[in-house]
Amino acid sequence: MATTGKQIFSTLDAGGTLTVEVGEKSFDAPTGAQVLVKMEAAPINPSDLALLFSAADLENAEYTPGKIVAQMPEPFLSGAKGRHGQKSVVGNEGAGTVIAAGEDPAAQALIGQRVACVPGNAFGQYAVAPAAMCLPLGDISSVDGASAFVNPMTALGFVETAKMEGHNAIIHLAAASNLGQMLNRICQEDDMKLVNIVRKQEHADLLKSQGAKYVVNSSDDDFMAQLRSAIDETDAYLGFDPIGGGKMTDAVLKAMEQVAAGKMTEFSRYGSDQDKKMYMYGRLDLGPTILTPSYGLQWTVSGWLLTPFLAKAGMETVVRMRTRVLTNMKTTFASNYKAHVNLEQMLEKEAALDYRAMKTGEKYLVTPHS
Amino acid sequence: MATTGKQIFSTLDAGGTLTVEVGEKSFDAPTGAQVLVKMEAAPINPSDLALLFSAADLENAEYTPGKIVAQMPEPFLSGAKGRHGQKSVVGNEGAGTVIAAGEDPAAQALIGQRVACVPGNAFGQYAVAPAAMCLPLGDISSVDGASAFVNPMTALGFVETAKMEGHNAIIHLAAASNLGQMLNRICQEDDMKLVNIVRKQEHADLLKSQGAKYVVNSSDDDFMAQLRSAIDETDAYLGFDPIGGGKMTDAVLKAMEQVAAGKMTEFSRYGSDQDKKMYMYGRLDLGPTILTPSYGLQWTVSGWLLTPFLAKAGMETVVRMRTRVLTNMKTTFASNYKAHVNLEQMLEKEAALDYRAMKTGEKYLVTPHS
Repeated sequence: MATTGKQIFSTLDAGGTLTVEVGEKSFDAPTGAQVLVKMEAAPINPSDLALLFSAADLENAEYTPGKIVAQMPEPFLSGAKGRHGQKSVVGNEGAGTVIAAGEDPAAQALIGQRVACVPGNAFGQYAVAPAAMCLPLGDISSVDGASAFVNPMTALGFVETAKMEGHNAIIHLAAASNLGQMLNRICQEDDMKLVNIVRKQEHADLLKSQGAKYVVNSSDDDFMAQLRSAIDETDAYLGFDPIGGGKMTDAVLKAMEQVAAGKMTEFSRYGSDQDKKMYMYGRLDLGPTILTPSYGLQWTVSGWLLTPFLAKAGMETVVRMRTRVLTNMKTTFASNYKAHVNLEQMLEKEAALDYRAMKTGEKYLVTPHS
Repeated sequence: MATTGKQIFSTLDAGGTLTVEVGEKSFDAPTGAQVLVKMEAAPINPSDLALLFSAADLENAEYTPGKIVAQMPEPFLSGAKGRHGQKSVVGNEGAGTVIAAGEDPAAQALIGQRVACVPGNAFGQYAVAPAAMCLPLGDISSVDGASAFVNPMTALGFVETAKMEGHNAIIHLAAASNLGQMLNRICQEDDMKLVNIVRKQEHADLLKSQGAKYVVNSSDDDFMAQLRSAIDETDAYLGFDPIGGGKMTDAVLKAMEQVAAGKMTEFSRYGSDQDKKMYMYGRLDLGPTILTPSYGLQWTVSGWLLTPFLAKAGMETVVRMRTRVLTNMKTTFASNYKAHVNLEQMLEKEAALDYRAMKTGEKYLVTPHS
């Protein structure tokens, strides 16, 4: 017996027209180790927006109930050739209740339970997920558990990455985000020093009120001096950047080099011999990344993605991370939302423009059955 | 008894005046495992130019015999704070004859021998070097052996790096340089596929005449298509870039991603899961490096420097590399020079502007006693 529910689809045609609409999707009864989840809550993460809207012109789009039709500019249209004409489901993660399961005992054991999952179509009323990837939420609500995967595992992944690479300190950009606040809590628990870079005084105040020791405001005139001082105190030569575009990663590498070079006993034409590394884990700014010749050649800029990281970290580490997330879901790993929207409200102009702006601390939660 | 000879010095004062001049330098009799080398030939490598001139305005400089006085623009003046006021010797490598040695048997054994060495003051008539770092040249002349270290070990280092990281193919930018021609020979000997990127048809022809199979001309209208085709045939997802500034590394990462994405069975919002890596080993272009959001987040751009590489590779590998260089000094690892200049000629306007332009295949050799 098939189960049918509403689902958000995003379709980009070769001519540059992006259609995002509420449609219907049917699911056969789950088999094997699969479960069918009635989705109750799903966060709109920056990583979802890349598929949902990419760089489409939402300001001048056509809005009708349950539907947005917008134009996709170049080079984003050509850059997404692989999806032209494909009707894509959207929504990495969410939480809901298991309403049916395949014959596998691991799947059967989840019937009736609330779980967090990563189905890829979380902006819909139903989803299928492998039992092994479901995180049973116990008495945690779907709203509280909706963001149990992407942000918590990403923030924990940064700290695990730093430890694996021998670092005792991290620099984080756009540090007042939900993820940034989470990282701030994890780092305090793990005695990992954290240099938080924010753009507004209110965000600096927020992080400080949450126990952050090193907060640097990039809007301040003495930003570079603040940053150098924080690097000097923490020895932070590893950073994580969700912005990507612009000159902030460059500024951090510059500051790292200035601190390291200041500690050298003699000038080297190649710069300091201090390794400096920035991981880019997002592209909030779709403009080009600018790297100036200001820090020698002892540096690395690299993409950081959760899935390859988890594969590299291995099952034992992943299980340890998941257990920690579940145990501390309502404290260390809690997320906050600016608004709850159902699938139709999600496609209204005011909402779409608002959550697409990805303003710090203004995340939306989708509640598909409300 | 001290030995005194002519020496090139480069001094940058805090006000932005760069003085490059022929002075004198004295050397005490060598002790321990050190040897004193009468320097007979030294190449002017791009890595030397960074210290010698950096971005100084040589067009409008003041030229007097044995002396250049030029102005250093920002941000290069501030970026080199560590050397302000320091009188720096210049010249990474060269070759000459050992005329005195410390009491250590390894040093004594070199007396009277011709050696290649990396003293850091090779643009001078004498230099001191540790015996362990000297490469005895046997019947190879100082002119033929002058470039025995930097280019050969760098080109071999690329191939070693590729092998260590599990690659069977390499992309090389500015591929018709002395180093590029060397790399072309090494890759043919080692069955490492090499995609050569050049900017001129004559350079493409040169490399092809030397057996290169994959040569791509970035000045051609269909450059990107040529590059994709070469990547498709070779599976080259590792590149080495001596240019640094501009958009060429970005173009290579784009082409890598386009080939990899074309082989995927379904579209991924994160791009392909193919690792893509570019090493920047020089900064022939001092402009900013531009990285566009065109290839997901599965990529790395990293500096590559010879000394940290050799430290990581370990002594056994280094000895193997050095032996290979010495055995094939006049074939695989041969360098060509456009002109020979003595220390005074090196500071004449026409020469300085010419070798500072770092044109492909137009390297200068300094012969300090001529």
